[in-house]
Amino acid sequence: MQEREVAVKFEPSGKAVFVLEYTRLLEAAASAGLTLDQPCGGEGTCGKCRVRFRQGACEPTQVDENAFSAEEIAQGWRLACQAVVVDPAIVEIPASSLLPAQQQILVRTGDVSPTETSPAVRKQYVELRPPERGDDAADLLRLEAAVGPLETDLEALRALPEKLREDRFRGTAVMAGGRLVDFEPGNTESECFAVAVDLGTTTLAAALLDLRSGDQLAVASRLNPQTAFGDDVLSRIEHARRTPQGLNELHEAAVEAIDEMIGQLAAEAAIRRDRVYEVIVSGNTTMQQLFCRIDTRSLGEVPFVAATSRGIRAGASRLGLNIHPRGSVFLMPVIGGFVGGDTVSGILATGLVDEPGPALLIDIGTNGEIVLWADGKLAAASTAAGPAFEGARISQGMRASTGAIDKVLVADRLLLNVIGNVAPVGLCGSALVDLAAELLRHGVLAPEGRLRAGDELPGDAPADLRKRVIALDGRPAFLLVDSPQAGADRAIRVTQRDFRELQLATGAIRAGIVLLLRRAGLAPESLDRVLVAGGFGNFIRRSSAQRIGLLPPEIERRRIRYQGNTSLAGARLAAVSTAARQRAEELARRTEHVDLSCEPDFQTAFAEAMIFPEA
Amino acid sequence: MQEREVAVKFEPSGKAVFVLEYTRLLEAAASAGLTLDQPCGGEGTCGKCRVRFRQGACEPTQVDENAFSAEEIAQGWRLACQAVVVDPAIVEIPASSLLPAQQQILVRTGDVSPTETSPAVRKQYVELRPPERGDDAADLLRLEAAVGPLETDLEALRALPEKLREDRFRGTAVMAGGRLVDFEPGNTESECFAVAVDLGTTTLAAALLDLRSGDQLAVASRLNPQTAFGDDVLSRIEHARRTPQGLNELHEAAVEAIDEMIGQLAAEAAIRRDRVYEVIVSGNTTMQQLFCRIDTRSLGEVPFVAATSRGIRAGASRLGLNIHPRGSVFLMPVIGGFVGGDTVSGILATGLVDEPGPALLIDIGTNGEIVLWADGKLAAASTAAGPAFEGARISQGMRASTGAIDKVLVADRLLLNVIGNVAPVGLCGSALVDLAAELLRHGVLAPEGRLRAGDELPGDAPADLRKRVIALDGRPAFLLVDSPQAGADRAIRVTQRDFRELQLATGAIRAGIVLLLRRAGLAPESLDRVLVAGGFGNFIRRSSAQRIGLLPPEIERRRIRYQGNTSLAGARLAAVSTAARQRAEELARRTEHVDLSCEPDFQTAFAEAMIFPEA
Repeated sequence: MQEREVAVKFEPSGKAVFVLEYTRLLEAAASAGLTLDQPCGGEGTCGKCRVRFRQGACEPTQVDENAFSAEEIAQGWRLACQAVVVDPAIVEIPASSLLPAQQQILVRTGDVSPTETSPAVRKQYVELRPPERGDDAADLLRLEAAVGPLETDLEALRALPEKLREDRFRGTAVMAGGRLVDFEPGNTESECFAVAVDLGTTTLAAALLDLRSGDQLAVASRLNPQTAFGDDVLSRIEHARRTPQGLNELHEAAVEAIDEMIGQLAAEAAIRRDRVYEVIVSGNTTMQQLFCRIDTRSLGEVPFVAATSRGIRAGASRLGLNIHPRGSVFLMPVIGGFVGGDTVSGILATGLVDEPGPALLIDIGTNGEIVLWADGKLAAASTAAGPAFEGARISQGMRASTGAIDKVLVADRLLLNVIGNVAPVGLCGSALVDLAAELLRHGVLAPEGRLRAGDELPGDAPADLRKRVIALDGRPAFLLVDSPQAGADRAIRVTQRDFRELQLATGAIRAGIVLLLRRAGLAPESLDRVLVAGGFGNFIRRSSAQRIGLLPPEIERRRIRYQGNTSLAGARLAAVSTAARQRAEELARRTEHVDLSCEPDFQTAFAEAMIFPEA
Repeated sequence: MQEREVAVKFEPSGKAVFVLEYTRLLEAAASAGLTLDQPCGGEGTCGKCRVRFRQGACEPTQVDENAFSAEEIAQGWRLACQAVVVDPAIVEIPASSLLPAQQQILVRTGDVSPTETSPAVRKQYVELRPPERGDDAADLLRLEAAVGPLETDLEALRALPEKLREDRFRGTAVMAGGRLVDFEPGNTESECFAVAVDLGTTTLAAALLDLRSGDQLAVASRLNPQTAFGDDVLSRIEHARRTPQGLNELHEAAVEAIDEMIGQLAAEAAIRRDRVYEVIVSGNTTMQQLFCRIDTRSLGEVPFVAATSRGIRAGASRLGLNIHPRGSVFLMPVIGGFVGGDTVSGILATGLVDEPGPALLIDIGTNGEIVLWADGKLAAASTAAGPAFEGARISQGMRASTGAIDKVLVADRLLLNVIGNVAPVGLCGSALVDLAAELLRHGVLAPEGRLRAGDELPGDAPADLRKRVIALDGRPAFLLVDSPQAGADRAIRVTQRDFRELQLATGAIRAGIVLLLRRAGLAPESLDRVLVAGGFGNFIRRSSAQRIGLLPPEIERRRIRYQGNTSLAGARLAAVSTAARQRAEELARRTEHVDLSCEPDFQTAFAEAMIFPEA
């Protein structure tokens, strides 16, 4: 199957991304850093995610036709949850269609208030008086007289004399937190960029930012190449520990990928790489330490100790990133154990503590993180969900890309949605969640996670489901797509083992939620809101997630809010605002790290969470 | 001639040096950082520099026999200005024989007051509680709980997890100004060293310091290998500018030499090189910039602009010095133009501003620096004396080492002193100054610097001088040693051109003194004291220096005080005391840099200073 890349430009932000043909518009917008509001969870019922195609509109769906007038349809109006990208498109997103928190971030980063949006890196064009007889002040002091006190390292000092004289003492001072980075001949104030990175265990995402305006100029994402060394953080820690060059291999894999992405972003936005002065990295503790080539062995043993919980600043060139030669890297502060910079980013970007609690922030990924905000206190825990939600360790699982079944619905018969309108080749995490929810509803899956077959099946199970429960190597399996229909040679089947993987992943998250709430003496019903973060989290149906117990079944669906990639959003905030960076340090410090394995009820809670909830 | 190295140990300090056989004891003591008081200028008349050989005493001179009883002579008492090192020796120096300023420095550095003697680098042995279930604080925070807040760079952070676990969280934190340098398993508090370096244009000197006690453990000196690229700073700036790899060659030559000296010092004191955590470098502006590989072109053009006037801190390994891999280098702040860190060190180490003025500090070297302290203000100027005082550019000149004529006296006939009691092979700067003074006294040298011959010679000129005025290539010259006596094949002659070099060198210093005094409206007679610094400055006779006008003839001789190598002494203070380092920054900032070439009277003053004073 040939995959075609299609350009989508969003207005009024002007942000542009390249996505695979048939990518859902919601996803394309998310990869441009724009998270649309979908209180209904993308089911097409709330009509919130209204967008207008100025160019490249797809065919309207039935849902679109219910939501809009014929005239509106003709003008290009669609629901983002329904639309797919079929041709190069220009899409207008009204501010009212954006997630409220997202609107707030955009306002914040666009704001000119110096406390909120002064980035760590700033530029100032100056015209200094050249030295002359009777005025032999040193170069650095001459510059300081114009821009204020500066710290310098040897490299910047070495460059200074020649740079100052290149255009007769006229040029642009580049400063990072009071430190002189460079003096660039001419006025380069308009070229001041940073890159924000979400360093996910499975997926890397990066955004190029204009530090003057706070605008996002381009975004990119790709598979984390470290997956070649292990699916989850523990297997990578093990690889780093066991293999002589293991730590270095993991470090280099991540750095090279990020470096390539920076090149890609710079090319896309047509800017010079050496005008990028900072890279902000947000990831879990292990990912951040591996990126820095800091030994992770103590993260692999109880009680899982990080090297530092502060933000780390390091020279970009020392780490192997090709930005400005004296540019730097900032890694977000971490909370403790595996609860890392991505969680701090999430707390920061969602404004979790800006509204009264109790509230939960749940980042669903290979590592799941749960933060509880209640009674003025923050507590966070991580749980090893494993990569099942991202389609890995599932026999015919895949990422949410072309050919993936991403939705499963059971009406009188089984209905599937396939990304890209092609023959299906596998299923992604959201489909597995849907399928489990539907099979539970119809009694085909027992609460303890066993597929029922033959006589065990309830009498009212739809015939279409009934006949799909097959035997595979002597164990029951569920036939999702029969071979003649599938894009691949084989049929698409979900095995008993696959459901067990889902149970483990779901149980890990759920046990974390239960234990955090129990420690605080709270019932799930008391939660004001549940904020869901992470690439995967944004594409599951809330009803399905609640049915299988991944999200608390007890709370009203409208209280569950999708937040997009909050790890990336937090890194972006830290890039454009030193105040945000300080707030991140404060949030990291004040958040209590709860080691779930130390909780007396842990084993029981985990065992209980493995059982799917009763209807 | 085979040169033999002999060990001399000084008590009670315990400092030991290796010097060439026949080195004068004064010089040996100076190279151990001990400057003896010699109000008479080493003429043997004041009897101040009393020392006692416990072992390896030389034969007493006539002066010794006048100064001491027979019993004292037998006990090993000698005057340091008379004694030479002939055998491995142990020499006791009473505190009363040391230069007063020196006594003060020793007291200061030995003092336990935390404000005065807290070095930038400190160590603290700690026993931390290892992480355990329920205590998963990050490594850095665990350490900070014991030693206080720490900044870390990536390298230190990378080393931390393993180092902490090497001896179960017991070990020694190494900190430099709030920054974590290392964590060393075990208690290494007793091994905390720094090296102070005087980076002279012609001569390098280095001292190994124990930062706990402030003691100097070993010293070393050698020719600056940069001399291969040019005698003075301007010719090196030119080399760096003209030659593609010039700057790098000069940088590497200095760094390699210092690195070798560090190795030598460490071997001598039997310490590990990686227990040296800091190198403090004091030199003139050009030398410091070349050492750092900072472009010196703007120091080669009017108005001679430095890259920075602040102290520079850089990573030692980045500069190429093999000390602790995360050790650092601190270069002293500079005043302006060529007036550099060595002058700041001089002001600091001599306590120039601690007593009321007016006072002068004169550092006589290849570059001469003059500081005037008057009316609560400091003003400093540099003058290019050239290397004549160090024996270079003189036809038969040499450094003050074995075989060098170092003293010339005229009684009824010419008397010479040769270092090492060997046949003379050349003359060093102090002999040239002596010779010029004596020839001026006897009218053989005219005040305008011309050697008189034949009829021109005054009638009362001693016969021995008369016959030594010879013709060489048609111009008059002075025959110091006839060929049969000389150790080399040739006779030792001082040419008219040699006297011209001396005139230029002397005139440069003198013009500087005259102009600085004139700007302040002061007469030389009003000077309370003249402090003389620099390797050469300490071995000239004050009477000769005053006679040729190198030091102001108008002031009483007792007001002229030798201070030893104040550049090295200042670097030592900066190593053992952060307060001293701050004071150095303040002194550099408050000292006005006077560009002599901008003074309206400069040309006249220089022309006048070239004429030797009338008797």
